[in-house]
Amino acid sequence: MPVQLNMSHPILSPPKKQHQHGDYSQSEVTLANRNNGTLLETLQYDVTPIGAHYLLNHFDVPYVDGTSDWQISISGEVNRSLTTTLDELVKQATQQDLTRTRRVTLECAGNGRANLKPRWPSQPWQVEAVGTSDWLGMPLKNLLQQASLSDRAQEVVFYGADKGIDGGNIHHFARSLSIKDAMHEDVMLVWQMNGQLLLPQHGYPLRLIVPGWYGMASVKWLNKIEVIDHAFTGHQQTGTYVYRTNSDDNGTPVTTIRVKSLLIPPGIPDWSSRKRLVQPGLVALTGRAWSGSGVPIVKVEWCCDDQWHTASLETSDNKYAWSKWAADWQATVGKHTLSCRATDAEGKTQPLTPPWDIAGFGNNAVQQVEVWCEEF
Amino acid sequence: MPVQLNMSHPILSPPKKQHQHGDYSQSEVTLANRNNGTLLETLQYDVTPIGAHYLLNHFDVPYVDGTSDWQISISGEVNRSLTTTLDELVKQATQQDLTRTRRVTLECAGNGRANLKPRWPSQPWQVEAVGTSDWLGMPLKNLLQQASLSDRAQEVVFYGADKGIDGGNIHHFARSLSIKDAMHEDVMLVWQMNGQLLLPQHGYPLRLIVPGWYGMASVKWLNKIEVIDHAFTGHQQTGTYVYRTNSDDNGTPVTTIRVKSLLIPPGIPDWSSRKRLVQPGLVALTGRAWSGSGVPIVKVEWCCDDQWHTASLETSDNKYAWSKWAADWQATVGKHTLSCRATDAEGKTQPLTPPWDIAGFGNNAVQQVEVWCEEF
Repeated sequence: MPVQLNMSHPILSPPKKQHQHGDYSQSEVTLANRNNGTLLETLQYDVTPIGAHYLLNHFDVPYVDGTSDWQISISGEVNRSLTTTLDELVKQATQQDLTRTRRVTLECAGNGRANLKPRWPSQPWQVEAVGTSDWLGMPLKNLLQQASLSDRAQEVVFYGADKGIDGGNIHHFARSLSIKDAMHEDVMLVWQMNGQLLLPQHGYPLRLIVPGWYGMASVKWLNKIEVIDHAFTGHQQTGTYVYRTNSDDNGTPVTTIRVKSLLIPPGIPDWSSRKRLVQPGLVALTGRAWSGSGVPIVKVEWCCDDQWHTASLETSDNKYAWSKWAADWQATVGKHTLSCRATDAEGKTQPLTPPWDIAGFGNNAVQQVEVWCEEF
Repeated sequence: MPVQLNMSHPILSPPKKQHQHGDYSQSEVTLANRNNGTLLETLQYDVTPIGAHYLLNHFDVPYVDGTSDWQISISGEVNRSLTTTLDELVKQATQQDLTRTRRVTLECAGNGRANLKPRWPSQPWQVEAVGTSDWLGMPLKNLLQQASLSDRAQEVVFYGADKGIDGGNIHHFARSLSIKDAMHEDVMLVWQMNGQLLLPQHGYPLRLIVPGWYGMASVKWLNKIEVIDHAFTGHQQTGTYVYRTNSDDNGTPVTTIRVKSLLIPPGIPDWSSRKRLVQPGLVALTGRAWSGSGVPIVKVEWCCDDQWHTASLETSDNKYAWSKWAADWQATVGKHTLSCRATDAEGKTQPLTPPWDIAGFGNNAVQQVEVWCEEF
């Protein structure tokens, strides 16, 4: 059972203020040191190198010594509750030819939070919480079918082994999906990433991958699935990951990833300011664009100093993975601001300024990269 | 040739102030998002899981597409300048039975910087910039012997492919070692980490590992070695990584890792404050202790609320790797502060308060972990 701490409990942060401007607090920096962003220069790779993929873990990474003891249970509104070991699950999936690999771009729902003014005090992502991996596992629906959902089944809740406190609430990380979403053929139980066992910090030995959704849906260290006859109200479902304009707003749930793109900052960086220096002349710009929901990206534009141009775009063979774009820029001496903007087949595109959300969720505003051009 | 930018150049950060208190700047947070710390709970593992090892990269990670073209040259004060491909180097090392694996604990020289008051504005590490890997490669000295050092040889300079700006100075990352240090049998040219090729962000395809030294000596993306007849004065050798009490101090170079230890914060964390909650009763404490210079750790003490006790200590078979320690704590209701302290065979130990250094290098003060104990 969840336990609610008194909000004045000494281990809790002071109540969150909506209005944070300017400098960052110690707890924002502690989170930033723990939760690594993807290095933007690794957007060169179709698949983000192991370990360079962004990481957002709410609680501690559980220590797991081997997979043979790892159990996954499914219970609640099912006709056949079952508990199986991961070894057995993998064996069955292999025998029944259910294993498959999907290339999926994941993004943290809070990516871009630090670019909102005022800023919600949490993990202070700028633009770097996105990455792409090859995930190997089996469709979740096969396990759900084996358990046989009862007529009353309404949602499927996924529990991780990771436990901690958020909003004063002591709980294992848990998220739900509707029956329709959970039965989607692309939702997977996953045990490998980029051809090797999951890394401890990415959910070893078993996790969910919900392609098209922001990362919070892809529960790590998965050991319990519960089918329920009502809407799940756990903290990670209703206490956070909700779009709200103000603190009185009940809001709407954060679900699929919004259309977005990034460019790899060209030239060389200053160590401290991270601003960029480029040589005058031809500069090859490149980056990635993605739509979370599997709708293809049909256009990427790039911008230098308010002049927009069309970039070339490689179509991706993988519905849920980012696409590569490229453009040639004739750099001239002086200061420039570079941007890019993706549009999907439904006409959805990126705003120039961050969409307002009190906690900074779903910020898909165009990135701004400041570059100084001179001979060096 | 290095190029010096005017210090008022628009891409550079404002001149560093010595006295930073309280909140953190945007550029400190940008660095924290890029440079990930080791998750303290992964100190459970003898070898830090791939990707969870701390990362401190000054400039961009170079994009390298395959190793077959990667060349390493050795020139300057040698009798036989030579350039070889990495493939050839690995082949020769294998044929001549020179390959070996060393388990080495690396720590960033700036680890603990954010715990100094005032604080130097740079990567704001608290305690998390340490990790242990199994590095596979060959002794550097074999390559130096093949090139045959001239009588005038005084230092060996190692250049990485990564390029950027620091202190206004445009340069490839480069560090030197004295001939004596460079010829030490444990200094290695490395191409594998934990049984797989180096990750891009850890120096793929070739790097140096200098066991016992802070991480800055272990140059990544190594492609050029130059033997010189004088002391190297590159920015990363003399403009930073120097112990200084104030900005007028010429200082002394940062070299080997100081004796240090960490404990894994027990119990469960609050997401936001990262403070800890534990149940009353027996709590198993554990952590790691290391001495950089290969001197064995002979004692670890742990402390609860100013009461020091001796912990049990596993001796490590690996001279340069951390040792595991453990202790049983009878936790009682209330607030507690936990610490640990290592001592090596030469009697070197950790101070209770950070040793003063203007840029926060070499902080080996004991860690303080705040824990709240109650039934939950």
